[in-house]
Amino acid sequence: MSFCHGLRLLYSQLPLFSRELNRPWCRYVSSSLALSSEKRASDFNSFVPRTNTCGELRSAHVGQEVTLCGWIQYQRQGLFLVLRDFQGLTQIIIPQDEAHSHVKKVLYDAPVESVVRVTGTVTSRPPGQKNPRMPTGDIEVKVKTAEVLNSCKKLPFEIKDFIKKSESLRMQYRYLDLRSFQMQLNLRLRSQMIMKMREYLCYLHGFVDVETPTLFKRTPGGAKEFVVPSREPGKFYCLPQSPQQFKQLLMIGGLDRYFQVARCYRDEGSKPDRQPEFTQIDIEMSFVDQAGIQKLTEGLLQYSWPNERGPITIPFPSMSYAEALAEYGTDKPDTRFGMKRHLQNKDFEALKESAKSQFNQEVLHLILKPDESLKSPLRKFLSEEQQSELIKALKVQADDVVLLAAGEHEKVCLVLGNMRLESANLLELRGLVLRDPTAFHFLWVVDFPLFLHKEENPAELESAHHPFTAPHPSDTSLLYSEPAKVRSQHYDLVLNGSEIGGGSIRIHNAEQQRFVLETVLKEDPELLSHLLEALKSGAPPHGGIALGLDRLICLVAGAPSIRDVIAFPKSFKGRDLMSNAPDYITPEELEPYHIQVAWPAAEAEANKN
Amino acid sequence: MSFCHGLRLLYSQLPLFSRELNRPWCRYVSSSLALSSEKRASDFNSFVPRTNTCGELRSAHVGQEVTLCGWIQYQRQGLFLVLRDFQGLTQIIIPQDEAHSHVKKVLYDAPVESVVRVTGTVTSRPPGQKNPRMPTGDIEVKVKTAEVLNSCKKLPFEIKDFIKKSESLRMQYRYLDLRSFQMQLNLRLRSQMIMKMREYLCYLHGFVDVETPTLFKRTPGGAKEFVVPSREPGKFYCLPQSPQQFKQLLMIGGLDRYFQVARCYRDEGSKPDRQPEFTQIDIEMSFVDQAGIQKLTEGLLQYSWPNERGPITIPFPSMSYAEALAEYGTDKPDTRFGMKRHLQNKDFEALKESAKSQFNQEVLHLILKPDESLKSPLRKFLSEEQQSELIKALKVQADDVVLLAAGEHEKVCLVLGNMRLESANLLELRGLVLRDPTAFHFLWVVDFPLFLHKEENPAELESAHHPFTAPHPSDTSLLYSEPAKVRSQHYDLVLNGSEIGGGSIRIHNAEQQRFVLETVLKEDPELLSHLLEALKSGAPPHGGIALGLDRLICLVAGAPSIRDVIAFPKSFKGRDLMSNAPDYITPEELEPYHIQVAWPAAEAEANKN
Repeated sequence: MSFCHGLRLLYSQLPLFSRELNRPWCRYVSSSLALSSEKRASDFNSFVPRTNTCGELRSAHVGQEVTLCGWIQYQRQGLFLVLRDFQGLTQIIIPQDEAHSHVKKVLYDAPVESVVRVTGTVTSRPPGQKNPRMPTGDIEVKVKTAEVLNSCKKLPFEIKDFIKKSESLRMQYRYLDLRSFQMQLNLRLRSQMIMKMREYLCYLHGFVDVETPTLFKRTPGGAKEFVVPSREPGKFYCLPQSPQQFKQLLMIGGLDRYFQVARCYRDEGSKPDRQPEFTQIDIEMSFVDQAGIQKLTEGLLQYSWPNERGPITIPFPSMSYAEALAEYGTDKPDTRFGMKRHLQNKDFEALKESAKSQFNQEVLHLILKPDESLKSPLRKFLSEEQQSELIKALKVQADDVVLLAAGEHEKVCLVLGNMRLESANLLELRGLVLRDPTAFHFLWVVDFPLFLHKEENPAELESAHHPFTAPHPSDTSLLYSEPAKVRSQHYDLVLNGSEIGGGSIRIHNAEQQRFVLETVLKEDPELLSHLLEALKSGAPPHGGIALGLDRLICLVAGAPSIRDVIAFPKSFKGRDLMSNAPDYITPEELEPYHIQVAWPAAEAEANKN
Repeated sequence: MSFCHGLRLLYSQLPLFSRELNRPWCRYVSSSLALSSEKRASDFNSFVPRTNTCGELRSAHVGQEVTLCGWIQYQRQGLFLVLRDFQGLTQIIIPQDEAHSHVKKVLYDAPVESVVRVTGTVTSRPPGQKNPRMPTGDIEVKVKTAEVLNSCKKLPFEIKDFIKKSESLRMQYRYLDLRSFQMQLNLRLRSQMIMKMREYLCYLHGFVDVETPTLFKRTPGGAKEFVVPSREPGKFYCLPQSPQQFKQLLMIGGLDRYFQVARCYRDEGSKPDRQPEFTQIDIEMSFVDQAGIQKLTEGLLQYSWPNERGPITIPFPSMSYAEALAEYGTDKPDTRFGMKRHLQNKDFEALKESAKSQFNQEVLHLILKPDESLKSPLRKFLSEEQQSELIKALKVQADDVVLLAAGEHEKVCLVLGNMRLESANLLELRGLVLRDPTAFHFLWVVDFPLFLHKEENPAELESAHHPFTAPHPSDTSLLYSEPAKVRSQHYDLVLNGSEIGGGSIRIHNAEQQRFVLETVLKEDPELLSHLLEALKSGAPPHGGIALGLDRLICLVAGAPSIRDVIAFPKSFKGRDLMSNAPDYITPEELEPYHIQVAWPAAEAEANKN
């Protein structure tokens, strides 16, 4: 028999734990581990009774006596087994002689996924049995002693079926899902990138890591804030959506340069790919302008970017909000592909249908045939001259498909931007690669409006981002006459069509802040009296940014969902499927908090009976 | 006039912002800033329009044109001012010639604590006017242009009175308090120590920084957990007291080495020097034993320890719980001073009174007079022989004072331990230094009991620490026969009499865990079914530790309270005095969470009227 054959069998049988070995990101993170050892080699074997990890042994170790700890990935007829830990797989040869019959029995009897410690000698694999696809494929360990540290008594299902199961099953048994190479690599990548960001901020640029409270006061209009009852009757803390007020107060307190890897909370009910708690790299600086924050952010990403994904070029391109909307129909353009207003496919009927059903918007198509004539429902309404002017204006070329829509500027831009992405989906389904998954296109979007008309009452204004955003210096005087026309000093950072960060220069003038709150937004300024008072007490000019870490790492890792870069994510309904949180608690447990459940009528009725 | 004189005036007038300059910890953190530059010099002036900080200029800069940003600390008759930022103070000379009359007016009119940017030339101070107590005391900056970036319109009180005000005022105006050198240094020290800890864990020992959820399920017996209502009627999240379950699940998930600077929550109502949210360095490892975790922890503290406070010697001494109790009357002995059972002062009447009033415990004194005779109320009950046996047993020497108490072992030990600390307080009030504030005495306390008898019902047992703690290997069989006698694999780390950390080797055997929960503790194991199931699925042996960061940094900084090393602490009643959290919110805001306030009867009545 050939062990190599055995391992090949293994690859096809156990996709969860080993198929990823052949994927590029496996190589990626193993060299990313090397990143940290640029400074100093990490010792993965300190403080524990093993000599090596299961991913470490090479031909150079042949002859050494080693002790390994790990999980039994696979065991074949008492002849050999494959031992796994976080770093890789090692083939273990089980002794067949009488003197070691106890070792053989122990390893033969141990169920798959049991935890064992083995000691043995590293030997070269026989000629023809080396496995070049396995980092440890040149060696095997002839075991002398073995101990089962914990027997795996029960798996909820066959491991080999795991990857076929639903995501909810993966989340219910997250501790098994975490054993996959993929989750191991994602979590390690996350840890390493954050550490590099800390280095950049602390060591290169003198930032101070300051922890701010998460039990705080409700912010005006904070409809998405979780409430936390206190022991004072009727009084509640709130879990803040960001450390926004605290970081501004730190600047007023003279901290100069603050950052925090901050846990934030947002209660949006059920939303796909959102989490009720999430993490952002939160940054604030005094005496800085927009260009300064942008430069800092570009340097931060370049410094922390994994070598294997890079290099990334800085400075990042920049585009105004108005331009992004007009050209791409979105405030977060995916600039990996062109295809702005010009479509080049035959799927426009499906697109028109989608525009109708999703947005209630008529969209017309227009095709320039190879004979330079137009094919379009519009054609009968246009003179020859108008037709050629249109072709010229749109720079249409033969075989181009153009989608046209009429209506309110922003609305039709958004519909057409959506059609652009749907077109890309349709084309990629046919095998065209429009959005290169290995390309990283960063883009600054700037010059947002400071206020938006409220959807439910367009006569009233609301902050486009938050009430602390400073007006654009050129538009400051407009603030007092035509606030709806004021642009802001807000900036968004977009990566491959996803918003990964945003920030602004803040208002540091107390009167201006009060005017915005009271006169423009019609909010009660008393709720922010502590901030208004602080602005009067010598507040430096300041600004900052927050980068959404879950989304950023998800894009860098090429993971399908942010849930793949979070150790214990909640389901899209906000549930922890492993522990079954949130859960009922007794009325007695609520008593110290002076609250009781207000059961919806139907349930209250049912509870009575 | 002499500027030097002016500055001296300043020192006496503005204690908040400058008196600390002469304190040792000011020197400490300025060299601690140098710590990070062991690797690379931090650039504090990147991305902003200043050339230097206010603590940076020296004789070597003379002749350079510089731009500084900062707060006006003091201004004297339009002649000079002192500019302050996070790094220090610089003396600014205001031009007196006609050509610069605008600059003079701007700076003369700006109130104290206004934020200004000035540009000028660094010059040497005239002979005799150098200030050796100020790091920038050799130079001054002759200003050419000045701009007020924000005028300080209102301070809630005279800055010079600030330090005299109550702590609650400091917390209400925390953004002003943060401008003090003391708070700046504390927060920077905290940031730097944590960064060094991260280096040690990530780079030296291959740990992975994993974020775990804070919206979780209530743990059995989790009476101190804040509840967070969800949008599902009657269902609540809880804010966990530690990531205990998650870190164990990470080990079961094969992460091998986890750490996190974790935010934890504990609702204890009003307790002095406790915070409803706090931070711990949370660590867990697979395949490790108690000695391994202790060695890791010692290395971690040695590596992150500020040079100026060190060196610390490892390994730390170790003592069993039983010995700590018998010798020091506490499980967290302050080993900076001896004076165990032997007291050497004349204050025993006060001590006896205190024992009586605080603990309802009779304490007897015994003094050995220089003539070797005993003075004690006991004397009349003892024969000569018994007296000399007692003197021998207690190793009493002439002039020693011994306090004796009779009763249940643990109780009298605790009373006498308390008397030991009270004695130290009394002696220190008289000027003796028993507890050297510059000495750092670490101590491991080990071999705790695994279970304690419940105070309210001594027939029942509760976990001494938590139900996941493994029994001592020598006592495992006792678990099933006499659980009250079992020692645990829990360890506490004590520094100068404060518990700064604790941890344990965990149970990794599912049956043992179920036995502890169900049979010993009488808890419903269903509440932890996810953990029990995980233990069956190939759980490696594992253990860990958590260090209380607030307390540790407080001791290292020599700060009087943990509130001095937290940027925005809560009051001892759990209130944020700046924003006034927690606060009332409207019934409408509670509606999505299906809860209503259960007003205490009196208030409900008052609300009706």
